[in-house]
Amino acid sequence: MNFKEKLEKIVSKNNSLLCVGLDVDKDKISKPILEFNKEIIDSTKDLVCSYKLNMAFYEALGREGFDILEKTIRYIPNEIVVILDGKRNDIGNTVKKYAKSLFEKLNSDAITINPYLGIDGVQPFLDYKDKCSFILCRTSNPSAIDFQDLVINDKPLFELVAEKIKQWNTNNNCGAVVGATYPDELKKIRKILGKDIPILIPGIGAQGGNVKKTVKSAGENAIIVSSRGIIYSKNPKESASNLRNEINKYR
Amino acid sequence: MNFKEKLEKIVSKNNSLLCVGLDVDKDKISKPILEFNKEIIDSTKDLVCSYKLNMAFYEALGREGFDILEKTIRYIPNEIVVILDGKRNDIGNTVKKYAKSLFEKLNSDAITINPYLGIDGVQPFLDYKDKCSFILCRTSNPSAIDFQDLVINDKPLFELVAEKIKQWNTNNNCGAVVGATYPDELKKIRKILGKDIPILIPGIGAQGGNVKKTVKSAGENAIIVSSRGIIYSKNPKESASNLRNEINKYR
Repeated sequence: MNFKEKLEKIVSKNNSLLCVGLDVDKDKISKPILEFNKEIIDSTKDLVCSYKLNMAFYEALGREGFDILEKTIRYIPNEIVVILDGKRNDIGNTVKKYAKSLFEKLNSDAITINPYLGIDGVQPFLDYKDKCSFILCRTSNPSAIDFQDLVINDKPLFELVAEKIKQWNTNNNCGAVVGATYPDELKKIRKILGKDIPILIPGIGAQGGNVKKTVKSAGENAIIVSSRGIIYSKNPKESASNLRNEINKYR
Repeated sequence: MNFKEKLEKIVSKNNSLLCVGLDVDKDKISKPILEFNKEIIDSTKDLVCSYKLNMAFYEALGREGFDILEKTIRYIPNEIVVILDGKRNDIGNTVKKYAKSLFEKLNSDAITINPYLGIDGVQPFLDYKDKCSFILCRTSNPSAIDFQDLVINDKPLFELVAEKIKQWNTNNNCGAVVGATYPDELKKIRKILGKDIPILIPGIGAQGGNVKKTVKSAGENAIIVSSRGIIYSKNPKESASNLRNEINKYR
């Protein structure tokens, strides 16, 4: 089963576009991270389509972090999409190493990558035809505008990145990352990408993204991420359920 | 001692702008990687100013790779600059995790980062004032042109990135990554950056960068990387010595 089939199946089964970000900071919790992750997964696995693990949080723990990452991924039910968020980028042999590490060794379904190096830095990821590579297009942070808004022939850079993503999608396994904090840009990007390319959307909640605007702008083929707002809440199950339902209200 | 002082001291002591890239592929060698790295370090430590370790090659080995990375860094003499090449990028808390991991846990002197997310994604690295962050400006690969050559108000994107690097250099700890395969662009970038910002230059040798053009275009404040051409050669000491001397001929 390829990524799109897997995503479609779990979106339908759990009636959810919600992705819970397992970006766990050990200073913020009072139990071992793996145990914490397992509890979050147990209490939310019927409410999500995906879990996203941010590589930085695990790398910061050294070799122990790698273990926790591996074991967490193994604990996630096979029907749920696992996204490794590392925003990797490089060229030649090096990208192949990253791809092997993320897709084969860690067995993820999808990853995030950075497009600044052009297709050389992207193709080795796309060669994994059953996996999905979400390419940074419009990031959720305020200084996204530093480069992504620069105008080339009447178009901002992020639109040109979206056009490239569309063009690079020959294996039908590209995705785009677009921050929920920019709903107008999200709408434009959806128009460029067409319906079939999935969009991974961080920025809901702590960063200020609005659920209604996000869902309306992104359309159906979207994965909407919440991390801190769910994993650190008093009742993660309830928080996940509420957000899933709020998202579904506008679908 | 900050990065620039350390670099200046070792460049002068070893009379070298050469950085050896320890991008070791276990399929290409016949002994354990750590042992291989130690032998390369033993035989080249009087000939280089720096070693660069490409994170992908170590990540691909899982938790064992993290160990090898840590032990290799510990084995490098303290006077030599250690660059961790991970091209990391993210925002907010996540970047802080990467910075902590690379600068504190792994104790590198310098790193490489990707600028696509703007200053939010860069500043947490620059907050480590005694370290250096080499920001991707013009990469060495053919498809660098996909985005880096797009023209905004008569200037290609890579020049605008160079201008931002100059502007972000308030702690005097920015660097730039520019591929040796683009000597004309290297010259332009050096002009924009001024003399004081170090440039990390991959792309000599296997990728086709020319030593003379590179040295002439980059000026003195440069770190010139060679990896495969040295570590897989029959006599790494001799290869490193030859390349160091060739670089010095044009300084």
